[in-house]
Amino acid sequence: MSIHSRTKIRRLPELANYDQDALHQLLDEAYICHVAFVVDGQAHCIPTALWREGEYLYIHGSNGSRLIKVLCSGQEASVAITLLDGLVLAKSAFNHSMRYRSAVIYGSFEKVHGRNLKLEAMDVFMNKIARGRSAEARRGNSKEIDATSVLRLQLKEFAVKISDRGPSDTEEDLNLPVWAGVLPFKMARDTPVHAPYNHGVATPDYVASWET
Amino acid sequence: MSIHSRTKIRRLPELANYDQDALHQLLDEAYICHVAFVVDGQAHCIPTALWREGEYLYIHGSNGSRLIKVLCSGQEASVAITLLDGLVLAKSAFNHSMRYRSAVIYGSFEKVHGRNLKLEAMDVFMNKIARGRSAEARRGNSKEIDATSVLRLQLKEFAVKISDRGPSDTEEDLNLPVWAGVLPFKMARDTPVHAPYNHGVATPDYVASWET
Repeated sequence: MSIHSRTKIRRLPELANYDQDALHQLLDEAYICHVAFVVDGQAHCIPTALWREGEYLYIHGSNGSRLIKVLCSGQEASVAITLLDGLVLAKSAFNHSMRYRSAVIYGSFEKVHGRNLKLEAMDVFMNKIARGRSAEARRGNSKEIDATSVLRLQLKEFAVKISDRGPSDTEEDLNLPVWAGVLPFKMARDTPVHAPYNHGVATPDYVASWET
Repeated sequence: MSIHSRTKIRRLPELANYDQDALHQLLDEAYICHVAFVVDGQAHCIPTALWREGEYLYIHGSNGSRLIKVLCSGQEASVAITLLDGLVLAKSAFNHSMRYRSAVIYGSFEKVHGRNLKLEAMDVFMNKIARGRSAEARRGNSKEIDATSVLRLQLKEFAVKISDRGPSDTEEDLNLPVWAGVLPFKMARDTPVHAPYNHGVATPDYVASWET
């Protein structure tokens, strides 16, 4: 993996990671990415769902959405994925920070063409939502799949930044009577909500075991 | 609140909300925003910490960071804040969706000038991290505060989008033998980690009561 000028991390470079595995892990855990693109010189930042297959990040949307139309034009976009893991409290305000895992990816999206390839890509997305889901949910019919654009971005130019440290105070602050440490977050899974129209459909294992 | 052309929500407009209170609530709950800006025609998307006071969203960073330098030039930026609340599973792949709360804000950041105003803004940030924290942690000294830029963006042009619904399947899918419902997420708080150099400092209430 070569480091490109655009993705070279200059702030806290010791947290930088240009490893494919670290990127894959982050993309597989996150459900949302933020896509930045330009229209008439103005930057836009839009959240959208993501999934990964191999060396590609996928997104999808309605053919008519501005995000999709702009990205299909081949414009170079910037995509960021961020997971917040905690607040880092130091003895001094200046040394407060956060625990996070983030990635920024640059490149041009390409359109996935053809119903079959789009359906296959959407199957991967379904199976990210719940393993085996693609074999359960009704697949998109031709009208639905034709109305949906599936785009992918090759994972070539990216940087991952992982901050998993505790606070780091300077020597002269170490004895201040201030609590220092980490207040961690975790994404937990709450009680599933059943649709009112399940009509006796068995509850799948991934629903029964969802709550943590 | 007038709706600007840039922030008029065209996809699922029934989820749109242009209410100041909805925006404030989201900004106060979120710790991270994504800022999109343009350099030489290329969009960049960078995550950074946020806080709010009154009608302003605040961010901060090292004077030397590209994000800070570009935003200080007065360029119009786009800022997105997204919280994911759950996966919405429908009987058909096409009707799967997510529960989320998101906001997109447009405008130019302005620099907060002067040590006192910067310190006051950073105090608000400290107190977002933990109520009363600004009175405990050592405040920035002049060297630290001079090295830090504090920027703010007025909350004038924005849209909030909240999706808190269950699945919505079409009539002909309602009797398919597929489970439909919501798999909710919640941001939970994990066991605090104490820095090795607390040296008998009392554990504050916000640390003792952190874990959920």
